[in-house]
Amino acid sequence: MKLSAMLGSIRQNKPLIHHITNYVTVNDCANITLCIGASPVMSHALEEVEEMVGHAGALVLNIGTLDPYQATSMLLAGQAANNLDIPVIVDPVGAGATSYRTDFMQRLIEELEISVMKGNAGEIGVLAGADAHVRGVDSGDVNGDLHRITQNFAHDSGITIVMSGATDIVSNGRQIITIKNGHPMMGRISGTGCMATSVIASFVAVSRNTAEASAAALAAFGIAGERAAAVTSGPGAFKSALFDQLSHLTPAELATDAKIREL
Amino acid sequence: MKLSAMLGSIRQNKPLIHHITNYVTVNDCANITLCIGASPVMSHALEEVEEMVGHAGALVLNIGTLDPYQATSMLLAGQAANNLDIPVIVDPVGAGATSYRTDFMQRLIEELEISVMKGNAGEIGVLAGADAHVRGVDSGDVNGDLHRITQNFAHDSGITIVMSGATDIVSNGRQIITIKNGHPMMGRISGTGCMATSVIASFVAVSRNTAEASAAALAAFGIAGERAAAVTSGPGAFKSALFDQLSHLTPAELATDAKIREL
Amino acid sequence: MKLSAMLGSIRQNKPLIHHITNYVTVNDCANITLCIGASPVMSHALEEVEEMVGHAGALVLNIGTLDPYQATSMLLAGQAANNLDIPVIVDPVGAGATSYRTDFMQRLIEELEISVMKGNAGEIGVLAGADAHVRGVDSGDVNGDLHRITQNFAHDSGITIVMSGATDIVSNGRQIITIKNGHPMMGRISGTGCMATSVIASFVAVSRNTAEASAAALAAFGIAGERAAAVTSGPGAFKSALFDQLSHLTPAELATDAKIREL
Repeated sequence: MKLSAMLGSIRQNKPLIHHITNYVTVNDCANITLCIGASPVMSHALEEVEEMVGHAGALVLNIGTLDPYQATSMLLAGQAANNLDIPVIVDPVGAGATSYRTDFMQRLIEELEISVMKGNAGEIGVLAGADAHVRGVDSGDVNGDLHRITQNFAHDSGITIVMSGATDIVSNGRQIITIKNGHPMMGRISGTGCMATSVIASFVAVSRNTAEASAAALAAFGIAGERAAAVTSGPGAFKSALFDQLSHLTPAELATDAKIREL
Repeated sequence: MKLSAMLGSIRQNKPLIHHITNYVTVNDCANITLCIGASPVMSHALEEVEEMVGHAGALVLNIGTLDPYQATSMLLAGQAANNLDIPVIVDPVGAGATSYRTDFMQRLIEELEISVMKGNAGEIGVLAGADAHVRGVDSGDVNGDLHRITQNFAHDSGITIVMSGATDIVSNGRQIITIKNGHPMMGRISGTGCMATSVIASFVAVSRNTAEASAAALAAFGIAGERAAAVTSGPGAFKSALFDQLSHLTPAELATDAKIREL
Repeated sequence: MKLSAMLGSIRQNKPLIHHITNYVTVNDCANITLCIGASPVMSHALEEVEEMVGHAGALVLNIGTLDPYQATSMLLAGQAANNLDIPVIVDPVGAGATSYRTDFMQRLIEELEISVMKGNAGEIGVLAGADAHVRGVDSGDVNGDLHRITQNFAHDSGITIVMSGATDIVSNGRQIITIKNGHPMMGRISGTGCMATSVIASFVAVSRNTAEASAAALAAFGIAGERAAAVTSGPGAFKSALFDQLSHLTPAELATDAKIREL
């Protein structure tokens, strides 16, 4: 499916994106999901997550403020999504910073069929078993060839892996795709990583080519970031403009401005 | 009480609005409560909700991200509010999307004396027993005469019912009041439904004519939405302007610009 | 350390600020921490708080929406921070409004070594045993000499006490420092109190003179508020500008515009 067709399909079908996510950036995730044209719902009660995910086009699991109740909820919702063939998109926020997060991510990888996992270099590096270091929830460091780490991890896990950074890298184990959209201001506000995951989920909900859908999502979000940075000069104004610009982005503009390259 | 007098009274008395609400839009609810002139407090610990609600002019129960702890907390706070004759305002976010939410709302209706319940057509339709459909937390569909559904539900339950929409409908079982303020941009950001409930609670805290207070609140919030849309062109800027415009709205302007009609 | 050196050090070292905080203003705390130049992380799971705080330059405990799980988490993280000599900054939101909050604060004071406690006049007054009254989470009232109450409480507790207000008062028991930066608009939005605490933690992370670091933080945040108010006319725009202005504030400007006075 073409980039423009994917964005057009989100806006036409308004897929419901079920989030089990952290309490820091949850509002940003809800709003960015609306801006791309999808519909957010947040729900974590064990009594309802299986039923709720049945309405969804994709399920986002984000461990930014993981706790045991939420962990149980994620496993329950994830299994229900798997049974219903609803794609599961995972954001391993802070994996590597604590063994609790790292261990839970490994459990998710073992017990669920995950469509896409998106993290920064440190998070993906830790989970890939590379020589990586993570301090908090900001980007950590990883030593080695980032393309290779991403591709090997995707190949071994069967998950489409997205390693975010100045250049985003996407691999499904065979293809390696790079996306050069985006702006450094996106690292100056809280939540852009989480929002990117919500946008990826919105694209994956309408296109099961998870690598292409992820690349399209990152391009769309990155273009919005570029445009927002061009018209603002501080993080508060930038964040507001980021929502505006993603909302205004047309399918044709996405196709024109995306800097996606398959290696 | 006149519209202008109600808004003047909120700004003079700054009633405390105790919220037990979802983690998605809670910050928006806090800020919109400040903008209308009241004072927000959020508290859900079983150890304190009864004491906290004793300070309040109204209690908001919003089930947007309901879980069992919060459900217990809502029942406890609601009963304390009932004992103290403090009005309880309920927002049945996502009722109909899962049986957990629908069942809990029916329990709230049975066990508490609720002053006002505000939902979209799908949520109110489901709870009224009409032919309704709800997918997530966006507006669902309902078949039938919306005025009649709202009025009958209010009559049978003894609750003032607000069905939000392009035209909002308020009924206490006898009166039917419509409010034609608002703007489609309000549906393009997360949280306007929840914020409307906080504004209703602020008005009900100063005027026990719950139908008139609800209508006044919806007019005030809708006027702010109209004005915000007139000066912005995207959801990020619109949201910021919505707070500004409600904050600037004077009692006299509310009286002039409200499009409230009793049928 | 000079004011300018402290801000320079935050921006160079980007200390990690571990927050266990309320769900109302958590996003604001994350963003303001980034704006001052530090790095936020939020984490409350009992399984990881001890490990997470080990990465941190300071720990923020904010009881704005305290519940029993969070209370346990705060004690665990606080003890770990104490063992590692990582400063603990406490915001007693709503202390005095319910005995649950007051009692928990007294337990924190007894069981932890707290570096700085920052509250409004009502909260600090209640905890100091003064004649104070608190209704919700807005500023309560206290009778008596505010300088004396702050100094005596600091002296008796061994904690650097910050009583926020039109003029902020800081005391470590010996010194009394006043800070006259800030703007009334800061009371018109939710979260400025919580944000101030995050900024204090960022300064304390780079300077163990807790009284001077707290004063510097309040000056920086207050200057940003003054500048934001000068360029906006409503709470929505003000909040966005507050982030921008703190982000733009240079060490040299902080030194020039700070209105800090030691009595």
